[in-house]
Amino acid sequence: MTKMMIGGAQIGGIQKDESREQVVARMMALMDQAHEQGVKFLVFPEMTLTTFFPRFYVEDRAEFDHWFETQMPNPAVQPLFDKARDYAMGFTFGYCELTPEGEHFNTSIIVSPEGEIVLKYRKTHLPGHSEYEPERTHQHLEKRYFLPGDTGFGVVKNQDVIMGMSICNDRRWPESWRVLGLQGVQLVTIGYNTPSQNNLSAEEGLERRMYHHELSVCAGAYQNSTYAVAVAKSGIEDGNHMFAGSIIVDPDGFVVAKAKGEGDELIVHEADFAKCDFGKSTVFNFAAHRRIEHYGLIASQTGVKLP
Amino acid sequence: MTKMMIGGAQIGGIQKDESREQVVARMMALMDQAHEQGVKFLVFPEMTLTTFFPRFYVEDRAEFDHWFETQMPNPAVQPLFDKARDYAMGFTFGYCELTPEGEHFNTSIIVSPEGEIVLKYRKTHLPGHSEYEPERTHQHLEKRYFLPGDTGFGVVKNQDVIMGMSICNDRRWPESWRVLGLQGVQLVTIGYNTPSQNNLSAEEGLERRMYHHELSVCAGAYQNSTYAVAVAKSGIEDGNHMFAGSIIVDPDGFVVAKAKGEGDELIVHEADFAKCDFGKSTVFNFAAHRRIEHYGLIASQTGVKLP
Repeated sequence: MTKMMIGGAQIGGIQKDESREQVVARMMALMDQAHEQGVKFLVFPEMTLTTFFPRFYVEDRAEFDHWFETQMPNPAVQPLFDKARDYAMGFTFGYCELTPEGEHFNTSIIVSPEGEIVLKYRKTHLPGHSEYEPERTHQHLEKRYFLPGDTGFGVVKNQDVIMGMSICNDRRWPESWRVLGLQGVQLVTIGYNTPSQNNLSAEEGLERRMYHHELSVCAGAYQNSTYAVAVAKSGIEDGNHMFAGSIIVDPDGFVVAKAKGEGDELIVHEADFAKCDFGKSTVFNFAAHRRIEHYGLIASQTGVKLP
Repeated sequence: MTKMMIGGAQIGGIQKDESREQVVARMMALMDQAHEQGVKFLVFPEMTLTTFFPRFYVEDRAEFDHWFETQMPNPAVQPLFDKARDYAMGFTFGYCELTPEGEHFNTSIIVSPEGEIVLKYRKTHLPGHSEYEPERTHQHLEKRYFLPGDTGFGVVKNQDVIMGMSICNDRRWPESWRVLGLQGVQLVTIGYNTPSQNNLSAEEGLERRMYHHELSVCAGAYQNSTYAVAVAKSGIEDGNHMFAGSIIVDPDGFVVAKAKGEGDELIVHEADFAKCDFGKSTVFNFAAHRRIEHYGLIASQTGVKLP
């Protein structure tokens, strides 16, 4: 069996004063809809449980520890795990993780239909900045509140599909996709919170930003012959607009499902994972075509060095 | 001065019995047009001087050595070099190179306005196969007639612009783009000969293949904040159709010029290389955002290893 119905559960804005329980109730309603449509694996966004607080600056970052989860699962999200197990549905969602050692990560997990956490990923490519920068139209302080992920891009075989995760800005980096591709990935899940305005270029605008989002996801899927489900937290959140545009992309790089609105919304597609094989065995047959002797700079040099 | 008019000189099919001199005359006509439009750097396609002979099988590959150049420049192409120098126009084109040591490469060069060869590149990602394969609708024997390039992806500062090259299939590989990006590239030139039909999937069709072409070039330009000029040898060549679709793409990943037909055709755009700076200093500020500690597989593992 290579076919499976997969879904993306876009979540509209979450306001500052919404509780975890309120958000989980919205997630469960989408899970019910997904089950009705036969979905067996469901993707929720980055930081599904809270507002996107890196838009706010606090001098003492410990004041924001309440946005973080110190254990997973925990009582607030347990009903989601229980419902998914009842439905025999795998799922993934993002949340903010505070470790026993006091480290903060932007994290996502894959949960099996049995309710087990089978893979954890911590966001690698944190965008934005770490100090208050008044020249920006809004702040994007991910580098203040999170450490760069230390997991790297792993994969897991879950429900007979090789799955891996990226989070938000990771999708713009072909390195994320390729490390997953080199492990044979067949489904890449991506949650994102993307402001509709570039905080350093008002003229960029929503339309161009949406294009960059789709360009990145479609290219990553095509160049690694993998399905991708990219899911937004979107709409107005504490007065800030984040774009929607949740999509499912096939291994040929084409959008096969797309959200219509900016609120809570389910998108679904019947994936046929056998379709990953054609690209992986022809134009993107890595073993036949890649020339790692010329890729050294990619893994040895971080920034630009001019000639 | 950060602005320069750049051009792409698409070349319609070259038949088996056309001489180098005939092709160079067509190239010079396009160079004249380019000069009239103020072009200061002009991009010709991959294997500009000959038909795309890897579609033909010969058992003794030495029979095909006549498609190769043993010196560059040579008398047949010298008029092109002379004209470019008269116009103070830099240019690049692809050809088949046979070295004194008897090695065969799919090569391209950048020539300065002074007529000097300032950079040579040998194609890294050879597509296709090395033996006759009857299950294919047509042969694509690049792996038979060429060695994988040994130059890697270098750059050169020419006419105040950091330039680098890719050839045809290289454009589908984000590694090509990233190695150039890590050297601060501002203009990537790409020549291609791309059959309109996938030789292992008749159903893929021209429209999907054109989409993959643009997707790859636009993503590479966007993710490395560079201009790209991708130029086809196109149309009917010895009864085989190759797609056209030559494009110029800006550092934001948008197509800003595109060929209309499948024959000899010039496309132009006034590039402003200062526009590369915004991406390179914000979302794709490599020094700030890349995490090479998680990219190891890219440069150490050629093929897929399943979990």
